[in-house]
Amino acid sequence: MTLSAPVGLAYNVELSYDVRTSGADFIFNVQAASTAQQRIVLESLGVTQVVPLQDHVDPVTGSRLLRLRANAGPLTLRYAATVDIRHYRALPERIAESQVSDLPGDVLPYLYPSRYCESDKLNSFAMEQFGRMWQGYARVQAICDWVNQHVSFVSGASSGTTSALETLVQRRGVCRDFAHLMIALCRALNIPARFTTGFDYGADPVLGPPDFHAYVEAYVGGRWFMFDPSGTAIPMGFVRLSTGRDAADSAFASMFGDVWATGQMLEIHAVPASDGVLRVPERTSDALSTDAG
Amino acid sequence: MTLSAPVGLAYNVELSYDVRTSGADFIFNVQAASTAQQRIVLESLGVTQVVPLQDHVDPVTGSRLLRLRANAGPLTLRYAATVDIRHYRALPERIAESQVSDLPGDVLPYLYPSRYCESDKLNSFAMEQFGRMWQGYARVQAICDWVNQHVSFVSGASSGTTSALETLVQRRGVCRDFAHLMIALCRALNIPARFTTGFDYGADPVLGPPDFHAYVEAYVGGRWFMFDPSGTAIPMGFVRLSTGRDAADSAFASMFGDVWATGQMLEIHAVPASDGVLRVPERTSDALSTDAG
Amino acid sequence: MTLSAPVGLAYNVELSYDVRTSGADFIFNVQAASTAQQRIVLESLGVTQVVPLQDHVDPVTGSRLLRLRANAGPLTLRYAATVDIRHYRALPERIAESQVSDLPGDVLPYLYPSRYCESDKLNSFAMEQFGRMWQGYARVQAICDWVNQHVSFVSGASSGTTSALETLVQRRGVCRDFAHLMIALCRALNIPARFTTGFDYGADPVLGPPDFHAYVEAYVGGRWFMFDPSGTAIPMGFVRLSTGRDAADSAFASMFGDVWATGQMLEIHAVPASDGVLRVPERTSDALSTDAG
Amino acid sequence: MTLSAPVGLAYNVELSYDVRTSGADFIFNVQAASTAQQRIVLESLGVTQVVPLQDHVDPVTGSRLLRLRANAGPLTLRYAATVDIRHYRALPERIAESQVSDLPGDVLPYLYPSRYCESDKLNSFAMEQFGRMWQGYARVQAICDWVNQHVSFVSGASSGTTSALETLVQRRGVCRDFAHLMIALCRALNIPARFTTGFDYGADPVLGPPDFHAYVEAYVGGRWFMFDPSGTAIPMGFVRLSTGRDAADSAFASMFGDVWATGQMLEIHAVPASDGVLRVPERTSDALSTDAG
Repeated sequence: MTLSAPVGLAYNVELSYDVRTSGADFIFNVQAASTAQQRIVLESLGVTQVVPLQDHVDPVTGSRLLRLRANAGPLTLRYAATVDIRHYRALPERIAESQVSDLPGDVLPYLYPSRYCESDKLNSFAMEQFGRMWQGYARVQAICDWVNQHVSFVSGASSGTTSALETLVQRRGVCRDFAHLMIALCRALNIPARFTTGFDYGADPVLGPPDFHAYVEAYVGGRWFMFDPSGTAIPMGFVRLSTGRDAADSAFASMFGDVWATGQMLEIHAVPASDGVLRVPERTSDALSTDAG
Repeated sequence: MTLSAPVGLAYNVELSYDVRTSGADFIFNVQAASTAQQRIVLESLGVTQVVPLQDHVDPVTGSRLLRLRANAGPLTLRYAATVDIRHYRALPERIAESQVSDLPGDVLPYLYPSRYCESDKLNSFAMEQFGRMWQGYARVQAICDWVNQHVSFVSGASSGTTSALETLVQRRGVCRDFAHLMIALCRALNIPARFTTGFDYGADPVLGPPDFHAYVEAYVGGRWFMFDPSGTAIPMGFVRLSTGRDAADSAFASMFGDVWATGQMLEIHAVPASDGVLRVPERTSDALSTDAG
Repeated sequence: MTLSAPVGLAYNVELSYDVRTSGADFIFNVQAASTAQQRIVLESLGVTQVVPLQDHVDPVTGSRLLRLRANAGPLTLRYAATVDIRHYRALPERIAESQVSDLPGDVLPYLYPSRYCESDKLNSFAMEQFGRMWQGYARVQAICDWVNQHVSFVSGASSGTTSALETLVQRRGVCRDFAHLMIALCRALNIPARFTTGFDYGADPVLGPPDFHAYVEAYVGGRWFMFDPSGTAIPMGFVRLSTGRDAADSAFASMFGDVWATGQMLEIHAVPASDGVLRVPERTSDALSTDAG
Repeated sequence: MTLSAPVGLAYNVELSYDVRTSGADFIFNVQAASTAQQRIVLESLGVTQVVPLQDHVDPVTGSRLLRLRANAGPLTLRYAATVDIRHYRALPERIAESQVSDLPGDVLPYLYPSRYCESDKLNSFAMEQFGRMWQGYARVQAICDWVNQHVSFVSGASSGTTSALETLVQRRGVCRDFAHLMIALCRALNIPARFTTGFDYGADPVLGPPDFHAYVEAYVGGRWFMFDPSGTAIPMGFVRLSTGRDAADSAFASMFGDVWATGQMLEIHAVPASDGVLRVPERTSDALSTDAG
C-alpha cells in the first residue's frame, strides 16, 4: 500500500430556500469532511440570514453537520472549499476480508441492516451469487460489477423511500440506489459497508454536470475502500462529505418545517495540489481509500 | 427533576450454543451498560472455551459489545451483574420537546428512519393522529398509549424481519414490535427516539418469566426518557443493556457461522441498593430517565 | 327496494397514442357496461387505423373489452354513448350482510385478497376498528367514511403500483387508492367488495373536470351497492364501465408495446332519459345499486 | 399435437376440523375438476354433519367449490374420486407464444398482476433475463428452470402471505412460492399464466408423502400447458383441482369462523384407466396440457 501524490480539488455550492413558516430548522451536510487523507486547505461559509450556526463533527467519520434555525423568508447558503487529497492505493489481489472478530468496534454498525439496505433478507441470494468466491477485495468488486450490470441508471425511476430490495426487484435507479443495493449485498455476506456522499469531479458527460454523488465504502484488509457501483464517476475525483449507514444518515440538506427549495448551484474543478502540481483525477484499477477507518 | 433513591438489581444470564463449523464469531450484548445513573457494583463473566475476548464500549451510549471467535463444539457464556440504579424523576407536564436546532449532535441520528422504523413513510399518519397535541412529554406518552392500545401482544405473530409499517398494518407483535412502531411514530414527528434493550425485573406474571425486554427512549426536555409501549413491564425495574436505532443494532447475541442455540437461562432479583435498602421496582406516573444523554 | 326514475347520461371519450414499434396491442375498457339497470341507448366507436377490432363481454359483469393490434404511427379511438340508468334504491337500515354460505358462486372471488387489496394482512385492524358494529350496510358505510376521513386526496402521492397497505400507512392518494383501501377492509371482514370504474358526471368542481373515476361496490343484502370512498363524486352520476377485483383488472387502456399517450378528451352531460325527462344526478342517503349481481 | 393414452388415478382425502363457535362457513376445493381431458369416473363425498351442501362450478375452468355452514363441534369431510386423464402432448419446439390480440377473452385476466404475483414490478428484470429469447414454449421452460435453479425448497421459510417479490429476493419457499414467482415472471413478459392446484401422484420420495401440490399453467400455442417449477413432482401424475390467478383463489379449504384443523389424510394411487390398462405417470420432455383452455 502506498500513498499517492496529492490531488487538489476546489468546489462551490449554493443552496437556496424559501422558508414559509415562522421558522424552520436545517441540517446541512455540504462541508468537506476532514480526514487524514483529505485535508481542507481553504474554506468559506455564508448564509443570508443572521442566525446562529452550530457545527457538529462526527468523532468517528469526520462528517460535519451544520445546523441553523431560519426565519421566514429566503435563505441561501454558500460554501466553498479547496481540499488536498492523498489516496491510499493498494493492489486489489492482496486485500483479504476481515473476520468479524478482527473488526474495530466502530466498524460493527456497518454489518447490520439499515433503512434502505435490508441485508437481513438477502442472505440466500448473496450466498448463492457470491458465496463461493475468494473472500477479498475481488469479491467486493464482483458485487459492485454485478450491481452495475444488472441495474439501469434511470432518473425518476426511484424515490427518496426506495430501498435495496426494491432496486433488486425493479432493476432501475440512480446512484443512491446502486449504492444501497451494493451495501445490502456486502452486509448480507458479513462485509462491513457504508454509504458515502461526495462531490464528484468529472461526472460522466452523458449524465450531466457535477452533482452530489453517492458511492460505497467497504471495509476489507483493515481499511475502508471506495467503490462506485453506478459507474458514473471517477473515484479519484470524489470530495468526501459524509458517511453513514445509508441515505437516511446522509442527506446533504434536511429541512424541518414548511420549506421550498428554490435553487441549487454546484461547481467543482481541479486545482494545483499542496505540492504545486495540478493533477486531473483519473480512473485506476488500484484499490483506493481516503479513510484510514 | 430529582434523583430517586437507588434500586439494586442482580441478574444472571447463561447462553449455550453448539458451533458446527470450524469456527464462528459471536457478538454478545448482555453486559449491563455503565452509565451515570446505572452503576455496576459487581460483575463476572465466563465462557467455556479458552478464546480471546474483546470488549467494545460505545463511547456515547455506554453499550458494551463482547466479541469472541469460538471453535467447533459447545460454548456457554455466563454473565452475572449487580447494578445500582438511580432514576431521574420528573413531572411529565413540565417536559417540552426540543427543537431540532437545540439537539446535541449525537442525538441527531435518532431523528432518521432505520431498518425497522420507517418513519419516512409515516409523516401523514403521525401528523393526523398526534399533530395537534401540545409538543411535550404528554405527546410522546400519547404515542406510547396509542401503540399499546392498538397493537395486541401475540407471540409468534412477527419475526426478526418485521418492521414498524407491518406492525401498524397487522396490529400484532411482541415488545420489539411495539417499540419499533412507537419509535417510528416519534421520529415521524421529529422527536428523537431510540431502541433500548434490558433485563426486565418483574415481568407481567401473565406473560411469563423474566426475559430480555425491548423498550423505547425518547429525547424530550433535554434528556432520554423511558417508555414501555408493550406495557408488559415496570420501567423502574429495567437493567439497561444497550441502545441503538432499532433491533438491528441491539441483538443480545449475533452469530456468524453455523451455530445452534441450545439453551438460555435468565434470572433477576432485587437486592439491597448502595444505601443498604432493598427497594422493589414499582410503577410510577413520573417521567423516568436513566441516561443523561 | 324500489327502482328509481331513469337518468340519462351521454359521454364522449377520445384517446390518442403514438405507436413507436411495428405493432402494439391495445385493450380498451371505455365502453359503457350493459347491465339490467344501465341500458345503452346509442353508441358509436371509431379508430383511426383500419385494423380488426375484437370485443369481449364478461359474461358475469357485463364489462366490455375492446382489443386491437395497431400499426406504427398515430392512433386515436373515439367512443360516444348515451345510457339510461335506473338505480335500485333501498333504505340502508334494512340491508344486512350475507353469510358466506349464502353468497352466489360468482361473488366468491371478491372475498379474496388481490394485487392492490391485501385483505389477508388487515384482519386484526379491520376487526378492531369495525368488528363490533352491526353487520349490515351501515358497517360498510362506516368503512367508507373511515377511509374518506383518514386518507387525503393528493394527486401524485401514489403511483400505479400503490396498494391498500401503502395507503393505510401513508394516508394519501387518489380515487383508486381510496377504493383499494375500502375494498381491502371489507374483504378482511368477509364482505365481498369489488373495484368499479366509471365516467363521473359532476365531479367536484374543486377537483377538476369530468374524469375516469374508481369507486367501490360491496355485496350486502343480496346485491352490489355503490360506495364512493373518495367522496369526490355523485354516485347517481356514474356511468359504469367495468368491474374487477382491483385496478389490475380494470385499466381503461392497457398497451403492450412501445406506445406513448398523446392526448385524452372526456366529456359527459345529462340528457333526457327514456321517459323524456332530464334529471340531474344528485346526492342521496339511499343505498344505490346498478347491478343486480 | 396428440392425445396420449389415458392414465387412471384414484385419490381419497379426509379433512377434520373442530368448529368452536356457533357456526362457521367452509369453502372446500378438493373435488377433481371436470374438464375435457380429465374425466371423473367415480366419486363420493361425505360430511359428518347434516348440513346443506352447495356446489359451484366455475363455468370457465371447471373448478368446483363446495360450501357448507357447519355447527359447533367436530366436522370431517371425506372425498374420493377416480379420474381418467388424457394429456395433450406436443413437441415443445413447435409451440409459439400468442399475441395479446389473439388471446381468447377469458384468458386476459391471467395477463394481469395478482395478490401474490406482482408482475407489475418485474418488467425490467424479466426483460433483462428472458427478453432476448425466442418467444415460445422454450422461453416459458427457461423461466421455469430459472426459478427451479434459483429458489431452494425450504419448508417453513415462507408463509401464507409470501408473494413472488419476496421469493425473488429471499430465494426460499415451497411449491406455492415457486409457482407464484414463475407466474409473475411470465405475466411480466405478457405471457398469460395461472396457478393450478392438484393432488400429486408420486411426489418426490425425499419430500414426503402425496400432498396437495401447486403448479403453473402458461398459455402458449393456443392452449394451457403445465409446468412444475418446484420440480418436486411428475406433471403427468397431477389430478387437477382448481385454477386461479394465484393461491388467493385456490385454497383447498377456506374457513370463516373460529375453526381449528384437527387432521388431514391424503392418499393417491394409479389405477387401470378407461381402456383397462394401468399406466404409471412418468416424466416426459413433451409439452403437456390437460385443459383445452
